[in-house]
Amino acid sequence: MEFLHSRLENGLEIIAECNSHAHGEAVGLFVRTGARDETEQLAGVSHFLEHMTFKGTHSRTAEELNRAFDDVGAYCNAFTTEENTVYFAAMLPEYQDRALELLADLLQPALRPEDFETEKLVVLEEIRMYEDQPPFGADEKCRSLFFGPHPLGRHILGSVESITGMTVEAMRQYWRQRYVPGNITLAAAGRVDFERLVASARRYFGHWEPGPGGRLLTPVQPQEQFQLFHKPSASQQYVIQLAAAPGADDPRRYAATLLATILGDDTGSRLFWALVDPGLAETASLAYSEYREIGLFSTFLASTPEQMPQNLQTVRQIYARAAQQEPIREDELQLAKTKICSHLVLASERCQNRLFAIGAEWIQRGRYVSIQEELEAIRQVTV
Amino acid sequence: MEFLHSRLENGLEIIAECNSHAHGEAVGLFVRTGARDETEQLAGVSHFLEHMTFKGTHSRTAEELNRAFDDVGAYCNAFTTEENTVYFAAMLPEYQDRALELLADLLQPALRPEDFETEKLVVLEEIRMYEDQPPFGADEKCRSLFFGPHPLGRHILGSVESITGMTVEAMRQYWRQRYVPGNITLAAAGRVDFERLVASARRYFGHWEPGPGGRLLTPVQPQEQFQLFHKPSASQQYVIQLAAAPGADDPRRYAATLLATILGDDTGSRLFWALVDPGLAETASLAYSEYREIGLFSTFLASTPEQMPQNLQTVRQIYARAAQQEPIREDELQLAKTKICSHLVLASERCQNRLFAIGAEWIQRGRYVSIQEELEAIRQVTV
Repeated sequence: MEFLHSRLENGLEIIAECNSHAHGEAVGLFVRTGARDETEQLAGVSHFLEHMTFKGTHSRTAEELNRAFDDVGAYCNAFTTEENTVYFAAMLPEYQDRALELLADLLQPALRPEDFETEKLVVLEEIRMYEDQPPFGADEKCRSLFFGPHPLGRHILGSVESITGMTVEAMRQYWRQRYVPGNITLAAAGRVDFERLVASARRYFGHWEPGPGGRLLTPVQPQEQFQLFHKPSASQQYVIQLAAAPGADDPRRYAATLLATILGDDTGSRLFWALVDPGLAETASLAYSEYREIGLFSTFLASTPEQMPQNLQTVRQIYARAAQQEPIREDELQLAKTKICSHLVLASERCQNRLFAIGAEWIQRGRYVSIQEELEAIRQVTV
Repeated sequence: MEFLHSRLENGLEIIAECNSHAHGEAVGLFVRTGARDETEQLAGVSHFLEHMTFKGTHSRTAEELNRAFDDVGAYCNAFTTEENTVYFAAMLPEYQDRALELLADLLQPALRPEDFETEKLVVLEEIRMYEDQPPFGADEKCRSLFFGPHPLGRHILGSVESITGMTVEAMRQYWRQRYVPGNITLAAAGRVDFERLVASARRYFGHWEPGPGGRLLTPVQPQEQFQLFHKPSASQQYVIQLAAAPGADDPRRYAATLLATILGDDTGSRLFWALVDPGLAETASLAYSEYREIGLFSTFLASTPEQMPQNLQTVRQIYARAAQQEPIREDELQLAKTKICSHLVLASERCQNRLFAIGAEWIQRGRYVSIQEELEAIRQVTV
C-alpha cells in the first residue's frame, strides 16, 4: 500500500491508495457539498442534482452514459450525505482513464428543464415513500427537533415544499457555487496508475475555473424537545432519541463508536440482551454518526405500544447504569473491538470500500489513515 | 497467491489460496451433498439439515453457537445447492483456529427432535413463500418437467409432502451417509496460516471415521414439454424456458457463459435491447448454470399477458438468428468479456468470494484455478 497525493493548479485534490497486489480499482469524485450547504428554500438540491447528473451531460444522453459505463464494464453509482456528494466507479485498472472521463462528464450535467421536471416527480415519490414506511418519517422529524433551524436538521431528500418549488435555474446556480475544483477531491484505490491518474485529471478538470471552495459552518445548538406523532395504520410504536456525541474532529470518536457497539449493536449488545433477545422489542439499537463539529448518538426502538413505556424505562436504566453502577467491562470492550476491527478489515478487502474510507477521511479531516492506523486507533481505546 | 493442498488420512481434503497481502480470511467446509443426492421421499433433506446445524450441536445450544461466532467477530453462514452444502465464516486471521473449531462443531448437529419439528415449520413456510411470489413456483415446475424423475428436477427446499413426512431418524441416516470425510473439502482463502490450518483440521476432523464418499450420478434425459399454470391473482405473465447446455466438465462452459451474457444479460444484451429497453417486457433474460454432466440455459420472461405471444416470437427469432443470419459479432463478444472479467475481478477482492470459487472448483473438478487462469480462459473464447 502506498499513499500518493497531488493537486491541480485550480485546487482540485488528487489522492490514491495504490495497492500493487489488487486486481481491480475504484475511482471517485468527492464533492464537498450536501444537505449542510443548503438553504431551507433549496433543501434537497444536492441530492436532486446528483440524480440529474445521470440524466445527461452536455456531450451524452442518459442512455449514452449508461452504455459508456457498460462498455468499460464499470459499476458506477453516486450518493449524497449531509456533507458530501460522491460519484464513483469500480472497474478493471486498464479502464482507469475512461472511467474518470465518464465521471468527470457526470459532473457537468446538462440540467435540461424537461429532465428536471420529470426527475422532480421521482424525487417527490422518494420523499413520500420514506413517509410511508416505518418509522414513518419520525427519524427526520426528530432530527428537525434536535437541530432546530440548523441545516443538519433538514432531510437530505428535501421536503415536498422545497422540491416542488425548486427551479432549474436555482439548481444551476447551486452547481456553479459548489461544484468548484476547491470542493472536489478525486480519489482512487486499488491497482492505481497514479501518474496516469494525475494526467487524466489534468485533461478532464484542468480547464475548470478555480472557485472559492469550503463551506460555511454555522454552530449547532441542540434542542431538548419531545414530540408525539400519531400514525393510525402502524401496528408498532417507534421511538427515536438523539443525543449530541463527539464530532468528526474529536479524537473521542473511536470511543464513541465502541460505546455504541457495546450498548446498542444489533446483536450481542446490552440493549439486545435486555430487549430484543427476550422479545420485548422488535428493534432496540444505538448508533453513532459523525459530522463536522458534532456527532449523534441515535437510539431506535420499535415495539408494541403496550410494551413501549417499560422499554423506554429499561433503555434509560441501561444508559444511566453504564455511566455509574455498571461501567463498561473489559470483556465487553474486547468483544466490541473484535467486531469493529473484523468488520473494518473484511470491508477493506473491496477497493470500493477503501475508496470511500480515504475519500471521506481526506475531505473531512484532510489526512490519510491506513487500515492499520485505523485498527490501532480502535485497539488503543481503554475502558 | 500460493495454492496449497493436503489431505487427512480419513479422506478429508484441505485446500487454501494463501494471500500474504490480505488482511482478512475466509474458511469453509464444502460438503459434496445436495438436492442431487436425495431420493424423492427425502427431497429437501440437505437444505433442512443445513438449517438444523444452526439449531445446536452436541456441545452447544443455538444461542451458544451464535455467541461463539460473535466472540470471534466472524460472519458465518451456510447455503445448499443442487450439488453442495457449504458452511463458511469470514474473520480476522488470528481467529482461524476458533472459526474452524466452530464450523467443525456445526457439522456434528445434535438433531434434537423438538428442534426438528420447530424447524420443519420454518422450512414449510419458506416453501410456501416461494409459491406465493413471482414466478409463483413456475421455475421449479419447469425444472421438474425438464428433468423428469431425475433428482435435479426437484426443488432444493423439497416439497410440502417430503418435508412434512420427513423423520429426524431419516435425517440422521442421511447425515451419516453423506457427511463423511471423503465428501468434505476444507477450503480457506486470504491470509491463511496453512500449517496451522492442517493442524486444526487434524484436531477437529482427524477422529472422524472414513466413509465411502462420492455420489451416484444417474444420467439426465431432458424432456421436451410445455405446461401452463393459471394464477388468477398475478398481473404479469411469466415464461420459463429451459434448454440443455454444457455441463461442469465441458470446456465449452466459458463460451456458454459469454453467449448467455451477449444474448440475455440483464442490461445491454440482445434480449434487453429488443424487449426490456422498449418496454415490451419487464424482464427478459438468459442465464447459464452448470452441474455435473449437464448445464442449463434458462430463459426468463415477464410481461403483460397481451404482449407475451409477440415477446415469445421475438425471443425465438433472436435465438434462431444468433445461430444463422446474425452471428455473434466481435464487438459484442468483447463487451461481454469486459463485463464478465470486471465482475470476476471485483468479486475476487473479497476472500469470501475466492473461497467459494476455489471450493466449488475443487469439489466439482478436483483442481485449482487462479483468477488469472480464469480470466485467460474467458479471453480465449472466439466468435
